[in-house]
Amino acid sequence: MNHAVLLLSSPDRRGITATVTNFIYEHNGNIVHADQHIDEQSNTFFMRVEWSLDGFKLGKQDIGKKFRPIAAKFKMRWDLSFSDQRPRVAIFVSRHLHCLHDLLYRHADGQLNCEIPLIISNHPGARPVAEHYGIAFHEILITKGNKRGQEKKEMELLKKNGIDLLVLARYHQIFTEPFVTAFEHRIVNIHHSFLPAFAGKNPYLQAFKKGVKIIGATSHFVTPALDEGPIIEQDTVRVSHRDSLDDLVRKGEDLEKVVLSRAVRLALEKKILSYGNKTVIFD
Amino acid sequence: MNHAVLLLSSPDRRGITATVTNFIYEHNGNIVHADQHIDEQSNTFFMRVEWSLDGFKLGKQDIGKKFRPIAAKFKMRWDLSFSDQRPRVAIFVSRHLHCLHDLLYRHADGQLNCEIPLIISNHPGARPVAEHYGIAFHEILITKGNKRGQEKKEMELLKKNGIDLLVLARYHQIFTEPFVTAFEHRIVNIHHSFLPAFAGKNPYLQAFKKGVKIIGATSHFVTPALDEGPIIEQDTVRVSHRDSLDDLVRKGEDLEKVVLSRAVRLALEKKILSYGNKTVIFD
Amino acid sequence: MNHAVLLLSSPDRRGITATVTNFIYEHNGNIVHADQHIDEQSNTFFMRVEWSLDGFKLGKQDIGKKFRPIAAKFKMRWDLSFSDQRPRVAIFVSRHLHCLHDLLYRHADGQLNCEIPLIISNHPGARPVAEHYGIAFHEILITKGNKRGQEKKEMELLKKNGIDLLVLARYHQIFTEPFVTAFEHRIVNIHHSFLPAFAGKNPYLQAFKKGVKIIGATSHFVTPALDEGPIIEQDTVRVSHRDSLDDLVRKGEDLEKVVLSRAVRLALEKKILSYGNKTVIFD
Amino acid sequence: MNHAVLLLSSPDRRGITATVTNFIYEHNGNIVHADQHIDEQSNTFFMRVEWSLDGFKLGKQDIGKKFRPIAAKFKMRWDLSFSDQRPRVAIFVSRHLHCLHDLLYRHADGQLNCEIPLIISNHPGARPVAEHYGIAFHEILITKGNKRGQEKKEMELLKKNGIDLLVLARYHQIFTEPFVTAFEHRIVNIHHSFLPAFAGKNPYLQAFKKGVKIIGATSHFVTPALDEGPIIEQDTVRVSHRDSLDDLVRKGEDLEKVVLSRAVRLALEKKILSYGNKTVIFD
Repeated sequence: MNHAVLLLSSPDRRGITATVTNFIYEHNGNIVHADQHIDEQSNTFFMRVEWSLDGFKLGKQDIGKKFRPIAAKFKMRWDLSFSDQRPRVAIFVSRHLHCLHDLLYRHADGQLNCEIPLIISNHPGARPVAEHYGIAFHEILITKGNKRGQEKKEMELLKKNGIDLLVLARYHQIFTEPFVTAFEHRIVNIHHSFLPAFAGKNPYLQAFKKGVKIIGATSHFVTPALDEGPIIEQDTVRVSHRDSLDDLVRKGEDLEKVVLSRAVRLALEKKILSYGNKTVIFD
Repeated sequence: MNHAVLLLSSPDRRGITATVTNFIYEHNGNIVHADQHIDEQSNTFFMRVEWSLDGFKLGKQDIGKKFRPIAAKFKMRWDLSFSDQRPRVAIFVSRHLHCLHDLLYRHADGQLNCEIPLIISNHPGARPVAEHYGIAFHEILITKGNKRGQEKKEMELLKKNGIDLLVLARYHQIFTEPFVTAFEHRIVNIHHSFLPAFAGKNPYLQAFKKGVKIIGATSHFVTPALDEGPIIEQDTVRVSHRDSLDDLVRKGEDLEKVVLSRAVRLALEKKILSYGNKTVIFD
Repeated sequence: MNHAVLLLSSPDRRGITATVTNFIYEHNGNIVHADQHIDEQSNTFFMRVEWSLDGFKLGKQDIGKKFRPIAAKFKMRWDLSFSDQRPRVAIFVSRHLHCLHDLLYRHADGQLNCEIPLIISNHPGARPVAEHYGIAFHEILITKGNKRGQEKKEMELLKKNGIDLLVLARYHQIFTEPFVTAFEHRIVNIHHSFLPAFAGKNPYLQAFKKGVKIIGATSHFVTPALDEGPIIEQDTVRVSHRDSLDDLVRKGEDLEKVVLSRAVRLALEKKILSYGNKTVIFD
Repeated sequence: MNHAVLLLSSPDRRGITATVTNFIYEHNGNIVHADQHIDEQSNTFFMRVEWSLDGFKLGKQDIGKKFRPIAAKFKMRWDLSFSDQRPRVAIFVSRHLHCLHDLLYRHADGQLNCEIPLIISNHPGARPVAEHYGIAFHEILITKGNKRGQEKKEMELLKKNGIDLLVLARYHQIFTEPFVTAFEHRIVNIHHSFLPAFAGKNPYLQAFKKGVKIIGATSHFVTPALDEGPIIEQDTVRVSHRDSLDDLVRKGEDLEKVVLSRAVRLALEKKILSYGNKTVIFD
């Protein structure tokens, strides 16, 4: 069954929920999920509402048009999507392939409601798994001098494939600021530490040297400031002095897979609203 | 600031959210929290909405009256409460006092928005802590033959003190069915296992003998069927072969305190809706 | 570097640790890991000791011979293995392939120190992934009447392939008692619930109906009593009323993969000692 | 029953375990717990061995004397203690009393094998609970100018009371370096964040602003570098955008209590070995 999802934020004031739900009701929509949140610090209202289009009296192409005056009145930022329009995802990966394997298996298993038309890597290693799942694989090598040129190629590939969301499944290259800015809130990364601890390189080695008793993984939107973007999801697992650095890596990779796949699902299902450096997650 | 909280459930149909939020909006209410849920199996709609009474055009005594026709139209079960009306809680306890200590410290610390006018126990051990916190203590001994008579005494105490909620903080007596029925969905218990595993007596010993690698605690509403009431909250912790039975008890008691106090907070803040043998938790 | 691992249990008495570690020391062994445990209920001593064979003065074939008198003196049950002798594993699977995919990726990634010469299934679905990883796949259909005959075939395959360990990666057939007995403590199963809760069929549906707030997964040795064998590893994850039955399955499958792979690693690294219905895990 | 506990570390070489366990065996000791660890980076051996003194042929005062040559031979750092010699603990606290309440209840409940002769605070608030448990309370106010003088007073109190271990149960003063150095590895602190994230002041506010999805608590030994000492224990709990700063504080305090009490137990039971900036925890 086809659903519409409206995701919005605005300055908080009386009547927003009533107005939005009335809009749906008066066109005969049946709400199947609704959640809202008010951030008291910034007096911001956030809402996600999902309704069945079965019997809805507006066509998909008219909903946004009709909603626009309401959005204007309440000064909303808003996004309207439909469950039958599957987002198109590009996965970027380097040498560590566990997250890629995990995402592709989930996708084949029907857990991720999206298309994955291409995989981009700065290493050749992912080609066999891409081929096993029948997904186009592009090896785009990054060297010290060629990053801007290669990013241009990537941009063209993404555009040509109509990509909505970029997933960095342990992609160990830092995009330039223009690239990141072009895909604001549309690049989901997995960092292999419990951010803000151990940002930057070799987080497992940092954690091992520090002697922490718990390690973590963090999925976040990419922003120009490295490892500083809004956090979408995190998880942790216990370690001890018995764990070698290799054990930390192995335990951590299990976290990475789960944390990244949860974040990707949330993004695909339009359950994330960013504000400043934080996120509202309507799970 | 005073808030109203409306908790409701009804058969699901179009327009409930719009109608309820309009009701609040047209009387100039400002919603501060709203959450809803639809159970697809039973086609039941659940909602919790909280709004500020600052500027609200209906007096507290009129809100219910005005809402009644809406409730009738949608066949709602509903409950209206106000944040300035602190529920009155009676704590029942036996020999293990960790949960009692924990609840009383939290209450004194301002974490539990309620009055605690009395503590009832079938053992004398809790008297000193009751006195330390200035709460009336009633020792009501239960023997094989006197349960109904003693429950009658307890009923009178609860009535006299205007008790809204009973918290069984490791109270090791089983109430009779009439007593339980009189306080349906108003008795919160802590069971020292991860239910439905290890219901009944000595759950830590059962867990120890079974050799589980994780133990848990469960808070639930009391129903006539022992340890079978709707689950409100659970938590778990790892154990190993190194843990003796005493270690399981100690680790488990840390869970019990946290799980029971969370459940009590949820009950006090009107965040629990029961349906059949399950709960919706609007946390 | 090649290591020896000695795993033993015996009635507890003075001097066992000293005797065992002296045996290693006097032949110039360097202990790299040692752990022990005493079960007070049964007065049983458990030990795992691992030492480097670099410079060790006994050949691999002589160690057991020389150790036998010590074992006899202390009435030990014991097992001696070497890190360069990779155990041979057969995986059994039915229709749910997530654990199989997970184990095969880990194996290819070097996380599991074993050979996997064959996969056996009562369904054809796993054939492509078996072929992708280059592992022999045997479809052995089980019907009401043919179980004993099919188990005979399986026995022959296992024998022919020199299988040491059977891993049931969501294999939904119940072996006969003679089959189970033939592989005592050598069949590792994953059950998709937090045992002993929700043993038997459809544990996710059972959990959904019960309304638990946490679900789990359990890996255990298979014994003739269904879902009752010694527990090796468990883990849990929070769920809520927002989670549908499908969500429970998805969240639970993430647990199953991690829990089963941990249990398999523990078995391969000779870190599990069973006694009665419990396990000592020297992790 | 009285037990001896030997805690030791040394450069790793062949024969340490054999030598130590032989020493116990030849004097007729019965080992009840033994654990060891080798840090491969630094080639350091760590061991904790606990044995029953029932039937042991050396008197308590002779054990150390007889062991000294062994320790010298292997260049050990070592510590010998006896379960019937209860360590003497001083608790330092400021305005937040949850950890203090928790420790005192546990102590009264028999969970902490120690004496607690005194509580020191820079605020008067803890006096009533100290008096309830019958423990001497010393208010020692710290101002900008008087720290060294006040620390001298504290030193005298600690000396007079024969204090072995200092527990900082949310004590919000920074000791001078000489004070810290005088109690190396004998000051256990609780920090209300998942270190190394959010070191320093107001960690809950830092976490709230950062928008993390998990918060934590960390217990560590105090060293001259603030919040940088060896980590003993950590734990974490999930939070969401629904949690206000007050919710973070409340959830975090539940962690703090459990994490600090675990660390104190580990210290009292001689289960912690520090090396460099890390710990081995023989739990």
